Amino acid sequence: MIKAEIITIGDEILYGQITDTNSQWISAELDKIGVKTIRKSSIGDAEEEILQIFKESQKRADIVLITGGLGPTKDDITKKTFCKYFGTELEVRQDALDHLLSYFEKRNYTPTPIILTQAELPINAIYLQNKLGTAPGMWFEHEGTIFVSMPGVPFEMKGLIADAVIPKIKEHFSTPHIFHKIIRTVGTGETILADRISDWEDALPAHLKVAYLPSVGQVKLRLTGFGNDLATIEKEVLAKVDEMLPMIQEFVYGFDEEELEVAIGNQLVKKNQTVSVAESCTGGYLSHLFTRNSGSSAYFWGGVVAYDNSVKINQLGVLPDTIEKNGAVSEETVTEMAQNVRKKLKTTFGLATTGIAGPNGGTPQKPVGTIWIALASENETITHKLQLGGKREQNIIATASSVLNLLRKKLM
Amino acid sequence: MIKAEIITIGDEILYGQITDTNSQWISAELDKIGVKTIRKSSIGDAEEEILQIFKESQKRADIVLITGGLGPTKDDITKKTFCKYFGTELEVRQDALDHLLSYFEKRNYTPTPIILTQAELPINAIYLQNKLGTAPGMWFEHEGTIFVSMPGVPFEMKGLIADAVIPKIKEHFSTPHIFHKIIRTVGTGETILADRISDWEDALPAHLKVAYLPSVGQVKLRLTGFGNDLATIEKEVLAKVDEMLPMIQEFVYGFDEEELEVAIGNQLVKKNQTVSVAESCTGGYLSHLFTRNSGSSAYFWGGVVAYDNSVKINQLGVLPDTIEKNGAVSEETVTEMAQNVRKKLKTTFGLATTGIAGPNGGTPQKPVGTIWIALASENETITHKLQLGGKREQNIIATASSVLNLLRKKLM
Repeated sequence: MIKAEIITIGDEILYGQITDTNSQWISAELDKIGVKTIRKSSIGDAEEEILQIFKESQKRADIVLITGGLGPTKDDITKKTFCKYFGTELEVRQDALDHLLSYFEKRNYTPTPIILTQAELPINAIYLQNKLGTAPGMWFEHEGTIFVSMPGVPFEMKGLIADAVIPKIKEHFSTPHIFHKIIRTVGTGETILADRISDWEDALPAHLKVAYLPSVGQVKLRLTGFGNDLATIEKEVLAKVDEMLPMIQEFVYGFDEEELEVAIGNQLVKKNQTVSVAESCTGGYLSHLFTRNSGSSAYFWGGVVAYDNSVKINQLGVLPDTIEKNGAVSEETVTEMAQNVRKKLKTTFGLATTGIAGPNGGTPQKPVGTIWIALASENETITHKLQLGGKREQNIIATASSVLNLLRKKLM
Repeated sequence: MIKAEIITIGDEILYGQITDTNSQWISAELDKIGVKTIRKSSIGDAEEEILQIFKESQKRADIVLITGGLGPTKDDITKKTFCKYFGTELEVRQDALDHLLSYFEKRNYTPTPIILTQAELPINAIYLQNKLGTAPGMWFEHEGTIFVSMPGVPFEMKGLIADAVIPKIKEHFSTPHIFHKIIRTVGTGETILADRISDWEDALPAHLKVAYLPSVGQVKLRLTGFGNDLATIEKEVLAKVDEMLPMIQEFVYGFDEEELEVAIGNQLVKKNQTVSVAESCTGGYLSHLFTRNSGSSAYFWGGVVAYDNSVKINQLGVLPDTIEKNGAVSEETVTEMAQNVRKKLKTTFGLATTGIAGPNGGTPQKPVGTIWIALASENETITHKLQLGGKREQNIIATASSVLNLLRKKLM
């Protein structure tokens, strides 16, 4: 088993000003290629701390992945510390310099000398090009341990991991074979799923393992197989998944990386159908879920964010009387929202949300978390009331999942 | 300076299945009382790993805070490992048992013997009552280092930190003082800011320190001061901030935890003004930025997600001729979008975005990342063309930041 350690460098993580999401993402990627993360650490921007942890990690791990501390500014000291640790010094790399110059040329910006110091790398570093930014990635081999250094900016780090680091790890180590299959579910919880598949899970052989990955409104199940031959493990995992699927079929919307809104989009494209949305409490988030995916313009035509009641009335044509009699958070209002957005935008389906996302605005009759969702189609409108908790962010995400689930079931 | 280390125990964090938010929260709380977190680590549920890190941390830190591994199930081994580390054993504590019994009595539940083992604590532990759950908090003093053990469930851990751990730390140590001030900027990069304030930064005394915290479209600057008297440091940090602000004034939108859209919202409320949005390439994300904040209904009235051209024409009243002649991604189209959404939704300002978010849809004339943004007010419409990169997610976020920045500058 190849052992990895992940080190994030930066006072901002240490002082709790930002959450470290990089190390989660990296360890999940390593897990996919059978590399086991044995420790994650966050330390400050101080040379002695960095030197100390390099020494410790080198003893424990085959590969040490480091993010942060790589910018051109004074508080970024990773590169200098690498030189000290490896007993080497910085040199200008032509390929790194070329990348910097072309990066800034494309942006019509003349880089200052301080920016160009980013082309200086320790002599023993293998240069990894950061296509999405200016701080370089670096790969070192030192006394049998690999050190990889990456910028802390998440999208730059992710680009480097995918383009350069994972391929180099696979090339350098003979990693055991692992095959993962992810089954994506919506509309139920971890416990109900676990209950349904409990006998199947108990009967799995030791080299197959289930993990439950819950998030707001959704649960992913991951079946992982380990072995010496990839084709054999893949076949075995897929056969076990086929055995399990009928037990939870009504909750399954997709597999692997397929997001709920993409699974829905694929169905819509296949049927040559379209969708529009009228959002009150989700406030644009539902539209964003669709449009964050490239290709969504084929089935998502748009929507109205009807936050103020005047927008519900003037843009969506909800009757003032409906709101006055039943309130903006009501089955009647959400029904008109869904039906009217569908008609106005001329789509096959109309989705709508209205509710009290919180933390304020609740009443004894309609406490925070009272939310109505609706799906309108040509012949019927399906409505559903949610009673969620007091957390605004969770309420928005869970509402979007639930209203998407109405459409998923309709398309099944 | 009191030094703390935070250790989270649990395979689910190590393998990247959940994000560790506990350690961020704990370090932010420690920071408030002047305790410096020097390292954060995540390790697995394995006795030898736990023993090893206890030994290491004890050498470096005055206080070691540990979360996780405390449940009644088989894989929770923290308590047993503490006994091994301290050379002691478990004993039943009457106060812990009383708490468990009353906890379950309130919930009309008869606890099983295995649940009641949670009243067993190492002999040298000081018991800290967990009012929100059943796993106990524990405080140990061992060879000059404090060890604190807490459950991993975030709200239980938070309750214990606030009710028991922080008061005990203050009682045990005489803590030094730290003061942070964050300056939030938009519309420029880390390097340009660093360049502008370089002389000021070089002249800072050793007990004041600047950090650059960049994200897509924005950069935060943090000035931190250390000392013995909080009022003195605070005064000193704020005076230095006042000195620096004029050098970067046009980019500064707020301080500390204030997000850009909230800073804008506060200005709008003060002026009794409102905003609406017409989104094409940001596809609902801009609306979501406003509406994710409680209280945004006071100034954000809603918007139209005009993804398909038919929505731009029929819902926003963009002239078909404008789109035909200039394309949907053009100054003319974005101008009509901003002006029309403002008129239709009857708000003070109208914001609009249209562009090619990518990764597909580019042409030689309008490559991926070509984006037009606009701000319409009663007397003028300001437009701006962005030439961004090829990443869809970054393009969406950066476009939202840029169009918000148009409004910020207008309100300044």
